[in-house]
Amino acid sequence: MTYRVYLSGEIHTDWRERIIAGANGLDVTFSAPVTDHAASDDCGVAILGAEPNKVWHDHKGAKLNAIRTRKLIAEADIVVVRFGAQYKQWNAAFDAGYAAALGKSLIVLHGPDHAHALKEVCAAALAVAEEPEQVVDILRYTLDGTLPS
Amino acid sequence: MTYRVYLSGEIHTDWRERIIAGANGLDVTFSAPVTDHAASDDCGVAILGAEPNKVWHDHKGAKLNAIRTRKLIAEADIVVVRFGAQYKQWNAAFDAGYAAALGKSLIVLHGPDHAHALKEVCAAALAVAEEPEQVVDILRYTLDGTLPS
Amino acid sequence: MTYRVYLSGEIHTDWRERIIAGANGLDVTFSAPVTDHAASDDCGVAILGAEPNKVWHDHKGAKLNAIRTRKLIAEADIVVVRFGAQYKQWNAAFDAGYAAALGKSLIVLHGPDHAHALKEVCAAALAVAEEPEQVVDILRYTLDGTLPS
Amino acid sequence: MTYRVYLSGEIHTDWRERIIAGANGLDVTFSAPVTDHAASDDCGVAILGAEPNKVWHDHKGAKLNAIRTRKLIAEADIVVVRFGAQYKQWNAAFDAGYAAALGKSLIVLHGPDHAHALKEVCAAALAVAEEPEQVVDILRYTLDGTLPS
Amino acid sequence: MTYRVYLSGEIHTDWRERIIAGANGLDVTFSAPVTDHAASDDCGVAILGAEPNKVWHDHKGAKLNAIRTRKLIAEADIVVVRFGAQYKQWNAAFDAGYAAALGKSLIVLHGPDHAHALKEVCAAALAVAEEPEQVVDILRYTLDGTLPS
Amino acid sequence: MTYRVYLSGEIHTDWRERIIAGANGLDVTFSAPVTDHAASDDCGVAILGAEPNKVWHDHKGAKLNAIRTRKLIAEADIVVVRFGAQYKQWNAAFDAGYAAALGKSLIVLHGPDHAHALKEVCAAALAVAEEPEQVVDILRYTLDGTLPS
Amino acid sequence: MTYRVYLSGEIHTDWRERIIAGANGLDVTFSAPVTDHAASDDCGVAILGAEPNKVWHDHKGAKLNAIRTRKLIAEADIVVVRFGAQYKQWNAAFDAGYAAALGKSLIVLHGPDHAHALKEVCAAALAVAEEPEQVVDILRYTLDGTLPS
Amino acid sequence: MTYRVYLSGEIHTDWRERIIAGANGLDVTFSAPVTDHAASDDCGVAILGAEPNKVWHDHKGAKLNAIRTRKLIAEADIVVVRFGAQYKQWNAAFDAGYAAALGKSLIVLHGPDHAHALKEVCAAALAVAEEPEQVVDILRYTLDGTLPS
Repeated sequence: MTYRVYLSGEIHTDWRERIIAGANGLDVTFSAPVTDHAASDDCGVAILGAEPNKVWHDHKGAKLNAIRTRKLIAEADIVVVRFGAQYKQWNAAFDAGYAAALGKSLIVLHGPDHAHALKEVCAAALAVAEEPEQVVDILRYTLDGTLPS
Repeated sequence: MTYRVYLSGEIHTDWRERIIAGANGLDVTFSAPVTDHAASDDCGVAILGAEPNKVWHDHKGAKLNAIRTRKLIAEADIVVVRFGAQYKQWNAAFDAGYAAALGKSLIVLHGPDHAHALKEVCAAALAVAEEPEQVVDILRYTLDGTLPS
Repeated sequence: MTYRVYLSGEIHTDWRERIIAGANGLDVTFSAPVTDHAASDDCGVAILGAEPNKVWHDHKGAKLNAIRTRKLIAEADIVVVRFGAQYKQWNAAFDAGYAAALGKSLIVLHGPDHAHALKEVCAAALAVAEEPEQVVDILRYTLDGTLPS
Repeated sequence: MTYRVYLSGEIHTDWRERIIAGANGLDVTFSAPVTDHAASDDCGVAILGAEPNKVWHDHKGAKLNAIRTRKLIAEADIVVVRFGAQYKQWNAAFDAGYAAALGKSLIVLHGPDHAHALKEVCAAALAVAEEPEQVVDILRYTLDGTLPS
Repeated sequence: MTYRVYLSGEIHTDWRERIIAGANGLDVTFSAPVTDHAASDDCGVAILGAEPNKVWHDHKGAKLNAIRTRKLIAEADIVVVRFGAQYKQWNAAFDAGYAAALGKSLIVLHGPDHAHALKEVCAAALAVAEEPEQVVDILRYTLDGTLPS
Repeated sequence: MTYRVYLSGEIHTDWRERIIAGANGLDVTFSAPVTDHAASDDCGVAILGAEPNKVWHDHKGAKLNAIRTRKLIAEADIVVVRFGAQYKQWNAAFDAGYAAALGKSLIVLHGPDHAHALKEVCAAALAVAEEPEQVVDILRYTLDGTLPS
Repeated sequence: MTYRVYLSGEIHTDWRERIIAGANGLDVTFSAPVTDHAASDDCGVAILGAEPNKVWHDHKGAKLNAIRTRKLIAEADIVVVRFGAQYKQWNAAFDAGYAAALGKSLIVLHGPDHAHALKEVCAAALAVAEEPEQVVDILRYTLDGTLPS
Repeated sequence: MTYRVYLSGEIHTDWRERIIAGANGLDVTFSAPVTDHAASDDCGVAILGAEPNKVWHDHKGAKLNAIRTRKLIAEADIVVVRFGAQYKQWNAAFDAGYAAALGKSLIVLHGPDHAHALKEVCAAALAVAEEPEQVVDILRYTLDGTLPS
């Protein structure tokens, strides 16, 4: 069994790297959105031409990014969504809803302060964790039955 | 043609009432989540028994609310998601993602300050509006072809 | 909003009647399998001809009953599955799995002794209750937002 | 043609090993839930934190196990469900219903005492067998047309 | 509960009339293909223009008939397929396969001589009957639980 | 049986009126896009605000129109697509492809000059006609079996 | 591009061998039902135990064969169904209907005598051929664009 | 991540070659319809026999081509549809609609003169470009995050 795991959400901490490093040796393929903030914001106009109106600037970019993210979510077995301490992060919650509607196994990763605000998102999840290493433990256990010692 | 329209998101202003009043006479059935904040938060423990841990208190409630909201979104033709000025509103973004994955026609309603943070959500929408009356205009036009005078 | 609620499982107590009576006045249509035990067991041979082998006797009947139950589960918004104190009740658990795979809102009703044995079933549910009246409370709250006083 | 076969149900006898050994040389990939009873029961709290209430202890574990089992059932061509002599085994019947709703080829394996109680489950199956070796014979025949001599 | 029942197959005996008459008073809506043999054969050229080649004559007609039959099968709860004593009746078997793939409840009606030739069709059915009145009994029992006296 | 028929394509002749008038008395509900050319072109900016760039002007309008057309095509039993003598009519061909992918019964209506250019579209259709009255004949025949005299 | 082609129907002539030999060198994987007539008829009782009643003898076998055939049809890109000169061949027509409902590309292979009786089946096909070599030509052309010289 | 990209539409310029050459080194598999115009027009009669009526000549060919194109579109992640300066190109618009209904990521490629006529098609797209090299840039960016320098 191979897992395809999509890592959605916060891009300002090293949580993806910690999961990927921790899962070294497990039969998992990880994917993620483009996490270069500037490239992600400007890709639309960089490729398809400048827009004087910021709304269309953003719109063109968001649609290009959707080419990547929709495929990766659609092909994922597990979608991990990380909510960080800052920002609105509505795209993370959007991804969670999108994944839930497709019947993906959803894992939510957030600090304790956000539990109440995320209760609807977490109600659709199969696991809610605080630390990236717990996600690694979940992947390891559900792949080979090994619990953390 | 009858539209079933689900009104998701912010519960602290009168945007739902303005849409429903404006659409008076149109062939539209509106629905919404339970918008009584206290009832929505406490329904789980009120019906299924108290929980000392707030996480499970919230969890039981969020799951009960999902019985209602999943049915209404699944049966909707159009999902309008309103993002207000305050709060994280992750459940609104979650509903938007959920609706998008089901192929619903999505209308996003938000003030200009949130355009950038909502760009992924709006990229999945068929309309982005600022005022509830614009949603009414969309419903009227797409039902009978009449544009605002 | 009208709920279509399928009441699956135990046929030896009055739990269905208590739910239906309690939901009087709510916008709910209830359905259930044929709960006449003898008719349910013998329908196949009564209509399609006797079988000397009990396995085929049962097989013919179970398939006829499936004509009814599959339609009702497929059309239900909510599937309530009641596990009683006695018997294997594998058809109840089968219905729960069937409903879960179809994305139905699942409510499990059981006494406290069965919690551990039902943990996989309950993990797929949006509510777990002990008393039929709690199911009524769930229906009422998710229909009109009213909590039990 | 390669079969992916999910072996669900009883964990206290060697039926899985007998099927896997018997199918040696056939083009079949077998999978199963975590069959370490203690790990399966405690995985949730071991990874995500202790729960004083046994219901939530079980709930967290059952949801983690669902990450594995839902993927394996969804990807299986054939789901074999074994009902043993003991216990309620509601998770086995739940898996059978889940697999049936997804249109999987279902094979039920049980002793003669359980035929009547399993009649609804067996009515959804393409084969009902008593011995693991019969499952091997089914796999061999449907893969290459060879009948047992 | 209302059943929508599609009556497919043989058009040279009164089996449809016997089922419809027998089901008088039951909550069932019946439908069928166009059973006027000449109209069914010639509808394509009668409406869309003559064809010198019989193959295209037939092709145009068969496609027009498909407008009707695909809708009715797609909307049916139960598809009854009757195989008579004569003719190839491949369209009946085609409808049975079409209905089976859509997950419809399939009832096969045929005389005893055809059992072996229909074994694959019957393996996909929930009931196999010889007489139209047995179909009525199935409808009545699965609607209201009443067995024939 | 009631047909829901969506009339897509050309808006400069009276073909819709001829079909609707001809089908008077038949059990058919017709629908269509907004056929007021100016309103259809300008609806986006009229409701959601002016755009200096004609591309976005068109984009906003086309998305609003999609709210209507996607619902109507999704709910249609039959999609009739009319190709007129003039213009590119790519939206008509787009609707035909969209309807074909959803498995709708497709009827193409066009003059003889376009047969070769429409061969891929017509290959997905169940009927190809030249005159609106032929569409009426198809509806009448497939509803009640009556051929034109 | 690789085609998976399922060869359904007649088992008494060498049409499968002629297609497979002709397609040598093309990127095609062929599959078929078990074509050993005796094994196919008796597999059920050979593996799962004798049945005194021929109907159940057949039933057990037909269900075992369905484990193989449903998987192969579901995974096929193209389903070729051959109708020979003899027998009822209802399983062939059933497979054609099953494949059509799943949206498979259907190719029907039959002699000229059967054209009228197969018109409904052929109306759902993308090609109708008389000789196995034409099927090879179709595979070659649609794979690499080469027409027969 | 590997993209499967289907290149639909115009066959008279070198746009496909420019995309394929530009994407050299990227993890992309390209596919396309048969772009040999004469072969594509005549394949039906070349393989399945001559037709005196041009409509059926075209019909047989279009259906054979559909065997290829439906599989490739169904398996594509991204469908690029190119509208050239000439011809009706209804098959291109049909493919776009087909791809949109299947939820594929759609990229439209056209010159500025066609923007208004393509507004409905472009409203369903995630990107609209004028030059093949922009499509390459989109593929590169969404695969590895690299923007054109």
